[in-house]
Amino acid sequence: MTTFAAKEASNPSVINTLNRLREFGQSGQGVNRVAGSIADVEARLWILAQLEQGGMIAEIDEVGNTLGRSAHHERAVLVGSHTDTVPTGGWLDGALGAVYGLCTALELSQSTEHTGIDAVSFADEEGSYAPCIGSRYFFGDEYSEQEFIGTASRLQLSLASLGASRPLTKRLPRDWSKRYKFFLEAHIEQGPVLEAEDIPIGIVTGIVGIRRFELTVLGRADHAGTTPMTMRSDAGRALIELLNRIDIGFEQIKASDTVWNFGVVAFSPGAPNVVPERATAVIEFRDRSLDVLAKFEATMRDMVRAQADQVPHLASLRYSLQCTAQLEPIDMDVRVIEVLSRSCDATGVAYRMMQSGAGHDAMIAARHLPAGMLFIPSIGGRSHHPAEDSRKDHIQIGYAVFREATKYLCTLDYD
Amino acid sequence: MTTFAAKEASNPSVINTLNRLREFGQSGQGVNRVAGSIADVEARLWILAQLEQGGMIAEIDEVGNTLGRSAHHERAVLVGSHTDTVPTGGWLDGALGAVYGLCTALELSQSTEHTGIDAVSFADEEGSYAPCIGSRYFFGDEYSEQEFIGTASRLQLSLASLGASRPLTKRLPRDWSKRYKFFLEAHIEQGPVLEAEDIPIGIVTGIVGIRRFELTVLGRADHAGTTPMTMRSDAGRALIELLNRIDIGFEQIKASDTVWNFGVVAFSPGAPNVVPERATAVIEFRDRSLDVLAKFEATMRDMVRAQADQVPHLASLRYSLQCTAQLEPIDMDVRVIEVLSRSCDATGVAYRMMQSGAGHDAMIAARHLPAGMLFIPSIGGRSHHPAEDSRKDHIQIGYAVFREATKYLCTLDYD
Repeated sequence: MTTFAAKEASNPSVINTLNRLREFGQSGQGVNRVAGSIADVEARLWILAQLEQGGMIAEIDEVGNTLGRSAHHERAVLVGSHTDTVPTGGWLDGALGAVYGLCTALELSQSTEHTGIDAVSFADEEGSYAPCIGSRYFFGDEYSEQEFIGTASRLQLSLASLGASRPLTKRLPRDWSKRYKFFLEAHIEQGPVLEAEDIPIGIVTGIVGIRRFELTVLGRADHAGTTPMTMRSDAGRALIELLNRIDIGFEQIKASDTVWNFGVVAFSPGAPNVVPERATAVIEFRDRSLDVLAKFEATMRDMVRAQADQVPHLASLRYSLQCTAQLEPIDMDVRVIEVLSRSCDATGVAYRMMQSGAGHDAMIAARHLPAGMLFIPSIGGRSHHPAEDSRKDHIQIGYAVFREATKYLCTLDYD
Repeated sequence: MTTFAAKEASNPSVINTLNRLREFGQSGQGVNRVAGSIADVEARLWILAQLEQGGMIAEIDEVGNTLGRSAHHERAVLVGSHTDTVPTGGWLDGALGAVYGLCTALELSQSTEHTGIDAVSFADEEGSYAPCIGSRYFFGDEYSEQEFIGTASRLQLSLASLGASRPLTKRLPRDWSKRYKFFLEAHIEQGPVLEAEDIPIGIVTGIVGIRRFELTVLGRADHAGTTPMTMRSDAGRALIELLNRIDIGFEQIKASDTVWNFGVVAFSPGAPNVVPERATAVIEFRDRSLDVLAKFEATMRDMVRAQADQVPHLASLRYSLQCTAQLEPIDMDVRVIEVLSRSCDATGVAYRMMQSGAGHDAMIAARHLPAGMLFIPSIGGRSHHPAEDSRKDHIQIGYAVFREATKYLCTLDYD
């Protein structure tokens, strides 16, 4: 087994390309390249030029998806990610995977036999206007007219102010289905696990499902000095008691990788000497298992009901629990997972299987074709922040594995 | 025992005076008469005119205290409260006690023998600029130069815009000490106790002390999807756990009338998918006993320390606990309490002893001379709100007791 990674370390093209891309929207250490902004569109035009110079058929579609197609193949493996960022985001996030895709396609698409390699940077993965609108539009997944028009008109505005007039591709629903065999995406982990375990590659087995709820307790605002404790309808204390119960309940039923968060808690009117009239929490939990998600939801609902029904001193309060977001978990394709692990072995790189706790374009792609993802470590687990970074050797090791896996995928026929 | 209350119900002067005063700053059902505003100063000029027409020596001092002195007596009982309101406040609050004082002085000050009756409306009890600055200035209690100048200049501005030029009294520290034997204040209860027990009069035994703390937990903001539960420094869950413990701890050590409140709780950055980096709560508790207040503070400090030291999974968090307000409890004068209970008996009115859970001008006065307070019921316990109200018969019963008690106090000599 050769140490492929050591060999790759001498090839600086991925790092150079990432550094060049960083210049679009650079702000200190970080990058501001929000979907549809001038920096985002400039970056896409630059990618387009690289693809064309590399002999690929390059296009931008109506919402901003930037695609380079291998000219000589009927079928292809699709590789890439997204180049838009959150406001004051980091330089890697989706850019890493988009550059892995671009460099792999430019390097290998002429040399593969039956199957080409197409590189993509999807539009607005971060949801500056509409989350994953790019990949949803690309794959013919559901989106609203409003999402389409909002995203397309931002793109048009930026193109106009750049003086660029390009014909934009109008994508027909599911035209990818005849062409694409697999989708492969790389991304920074955005979490601390790989760094803590000192493992350079994470192979993603699936992307978690998300349930988000808004829990509201309604009581009565009273003077907190003159109203005896027994005569209050205190929404604040009730919410604290309830959240603490829910937290303990979740702890008891969690699966090994379940995560949950009380990210928003707020009391109203929010004065030191006024009993809270309204107390609100946003409760989110994520897991790859629908059963676990269902168990969490049932536990939470039971606890809200139990407190509403059974705690006499809190009986005058009203509780409401609204589901505000629901994303279903999705598995990565087993063949792609196998190819990724073989590629790690072939390049002599340690890896671990892991779930993705965040959403990605691969989540959309996986509804339509066999998809897979690999992660490289994030320093300090940080992302969506100017301080976001990864070690250079990890970036290069990741690229070596990604390129190797893409080559493998081109040789696979499954239908 | 005659039913004095029934006799009083035929005397409408208190209700008429309250209704007239309500016109200054009226806004719907409520009143906007913030200290130093034109409405506040107009009300004070109107009170001044009533006092002068009643043959009293009337004055407004440099901060707005409005005082009517009995012309023929060396010594006097001081009666009254304040006529300023919170923004969009109610029509009674301090106005009730100020009008009781005004009407009692106008009705009785000519007829008492050795002792006069002086009526006062203190400035800015509500702390629109500085809490109780009026009574603190009046009694020569501590105040800062900034508080004095801020309050005085608001008054001057409003007087100027009203075209009123009056010489304002410059109050010498403690000049009241030779004149005043007692201070008596009436107020609406601002709580639900009297209404719930159907008792028209509360005799205040003392005013609670207040301790207010800001509790902050500092952790680290992480992606709430990609960061495993065991690798987080979650300030939000830690605060919920801690507040729940403190709440249970307070419940175990409370005295019969202790109250506490978690009026402000806020998480930052406050996003559903970000682990809270900073979680803050404002904790307030009130009791008449210094021992109880000290026990509450010690319990809270122990619990913060215990969680910081002993809960391993929360060890990476930092806790801070800052005292942001401290007011000492104060007892009402026993002789005044006795006089009030005798007056209730004489007028055939039921009463109960109770503490005041809110601060009042009597709290300042009681540091300097024997002071007492009586409460009448608040409908629904509401105050500091346009819906604030009291039953008309309760307003009249309260006045009867107040007037009777003032007469008694004029006959008492204690030095």
